[in-house]
Amino acid sequence: MGKARIYMDWNATAPLLPEARAAMLSALDCAGNPSSVHAEGRKARQMIEAARRAVARLCDTLPAHVTFTSGATEAANQVLTPVFHMGRTPVCVSRLYVSATEHPAVLSGGRFDRGSLCVLPVDADGLIDLVALDAALAAHDRALGLPMVAVMLANNETGVIQPIADVAAHVRRAGGLLVVDAVQAADRLPLSIEALGADFLVLSAHKIGGPKGVGALVSRGEVLMPAPLMRGGGQEKGHRSGTENAAAIAGFGAAADMAAQDIEARMAGIAALRDRLEEGLRTAAPDLLIHGARVPRIGNTSLVTLPGLKGETLQIALDLEGIAVSSGSACSSGKVGRSPVLDAMGFTAEEGALRLSLGAATTADEVDRVIAAFARVVARKRLAGAAA
Amino acid sequence: MGKARIYMDWNATAPLLPEARAAMLSALDCAGNPSSVHAEGRKARQMIEAARRAVARLCDTLPAHVTFTSGATEAANQVLTPVFHMGRTPVCVSRLYVSATEHPAVLSGGRFDRGSLCVLPVDADGLIDLVALDAALAAHDRALGLPMVAVMLANNETGVIQPIADVAAHVRRAGGLLVVDAVQAADRLPLSIEALGADFLVLSAHKIGGPKGVGALVSRGEVLMPAPLMRGGGQEKGHRSGTENAAAIAGFGAAADMAAQDIEARMAGIAALRDRLEEGLRTAAPDLLIHGARVPRIGNTSLVTLPGLKGETLQIALDLEGIAVSSGSACSSGKVGRSPVLDAMGFTAEEGALRLSLGAATTADEVDRVIAAFARVVARKRLAGAAA
Repeated sequence: MGKARIYMDWNATAPLLPEARAAMLSALDCAGNPSSVHAEGRKARQMIEAARRAVARLCDTLPAHVTFTSGATEAANQVLTPVFHMGRTPVCVSRLYVSATEHPAVLSGGRFDRGSLCVLPVDADGLIDLVALDAALAAHDRALGLPMVAVMLANNETGVIQPIADVAAHVRRAGGLLVVDAVQAADRLPLSIEALGADFLVLSAHKIGGPKGVGALVSRGEVLMPAPLMRGGGQEKGHRSGTENAAAIAGFGAAADMAAQDIEARMAGIAALRDRLEEGLRTAAPDLLIHGARVPRIGNTSLVTLPGLKGETLQIALDLEGIAVSSGSACSSGKVGRSPVLDAMGFTAEEGALRLSLGAATTADEVDRVIAAFARVVARKRLAGAAA
Repeated sequence: MGKARIYMDWNATAPLLPEARAAMLSALDCAGNPSSVHAEGRKARQMIEAARRAVARLCDTLPAHVTFTSGATEAANQVLTPVFHMGRTPVCVSRLYVSATEHPAVLSGGRFDRGSLCVLPVDADGLIDLVALDAALAAHDRALGLPMVAVMLANNETGVIQPIADVAAHVRRAGGLLVVDAVQAADRLPLSIEALGADFLVLSAHKIGGPKGVGALVSRGEVLMPAPLMRGGGQEKGHRSGTENAAAIAGFGAAADMAAQDIEARMAGIAALRDRLEEGLRTAAPDLLIHGARVPRIGNTSLVTLPGLKGETLQIALDLEGIAVSSGSACSSGKVGRSPVLDAMGFTAEEGALRLSLGAATTADEVDRVIAAFARVVARKRLAGAAA
């Protein structure tokens, strides 16, 4: 073929932005531990604090509210804990309520034991059942501790956007804490921790064009914070010990800067390509199901099912055609299994699904080539199926 | 001055090796989540597995025994836990015994509560008191769970090497688990988890010429493993969830490859420079104290105290002379305080200490320039002190 491969799996990980790469190289070439007081250490420290300001701007909050972690999984495990501190006073959280379509890093409940975890249903479109949330919070026994609710802003598989402001109003009335996984929403929706009404946001750099290996826990204030997950040297004001990953943090900062710029215009362009993609796929296969299409979705994501053809089969065939897409999420090692997200939405067809996710570098030509390849693969597979 | 700065703080963090930098760049330019099954994902996966083989070789063990983490602090917090699993069977560890000169990431006890932590004394040279260890293990109540002992191989401040094989014999007799923080020993001593008799090793990439933000927990086998610290997507065979930091892991692998090569010859050269440095400093200030000098130390480290002059004062003066050294360890944000390591050794003089740590790139010319700068600073400060 000779043609360049097409990457349409941005929700698994986004290609590194040139700006983030440049920031990382500067930091990599700076010997110096950010905790050292000599010139080399101070330079590393400055890079980290500049990145903290950029991530804070992305979330419409103050730099002091940003704690860098090794990624979103760590941030989720840090904040999903029964033990918080308000200054030096312990605050107990007795129960965690999560929506059924959360990422495994949230769905696994962090430091809560299984018995303290309550999974809330979603509807056929993947939207959280607010009546069920209300009932759960009404039944919550506050004498045992606060309730914590974790609902993602945008789903990694479907792209479906949860009504976080509504969720926040319910949580606020119940006097609980709201944790919002904004991993797939950052760079795809305007993000404001205040406007969302969240107490904590979870972010990942590598989903927004930064490097793998860094993320952040963003808090609405500085007073109420989770017990540290990692204890040691006392970095990040004691909230997260361990030598800071200066280069990755610098890259995260650069990506956050880019993500905060012109987000509406950028996403409008990407959404137009996604819509062109879905139209093309549907023309090639009129029986195509598009999950979550009836409700608001982020503009870059398309999760589809083709009756009679497994998502996994389509994914492998497209890979051979030079196109990287996903069947479900890429969260665990080489595992190809049922999608817990579709299960939660009541869609249990054995075909599973195929996820196509676009980014700022996606072109109309790439979209058209994916449509053409999809049409070829579907025709071939269905012919083979009919002959068998 | 116009002269290049001299970096003599390798124990805080080592400059990135060109080989590690190149490996990182290859990985950064590879879009692809290592958990994705398409070509891009498989390429990222291959880089990670190659790095795993390199780190395993460095520790004389099998790749399956290496779990990548975000750094040594995470690896320590992962392994220092009361809950282990042998396959699916829980194994309880009821008490953690640590030497008093451990790094804060170990000394803070990980996931053990304060009441389950027992700090063992060291002697004036910083060596663990084996009689106290024996007494503590004899008094351990095995009905409550296993004892766990954590002793570092080489101290980050003094460079003193602990008699790990002796410690291991005691721990083995008591039927306990031995965790060895090998962060400062890797790249400075030959490393074999079997020869040491350790059950777990903790490693950090950025101390051996790899990048910050990655480390490893190395286990002697695959059966007995700590409860995961981070739950989620199930990466690293379920032992450590979270998208792998592919670039940092690739850099770690390259640094591990370098560290395993010609270690004796390399360290002999570095030790000769360190000895030359200590001789020169002592000529400039004959009352100089060198901590741990009577016992085996790693060849790159020198912790010194000059009566009447604070380590911090010397550090700042040398920084202005273009020389990066440390007063104590660089483990927590800009904090300059008493050294808990010297405290534990019974050295409580208010002067504190100055740490000079060398690396493979250190030259004789740099050593001589540091000696000359040290002599200038000491003469100036002592003159000022005498005049005051």
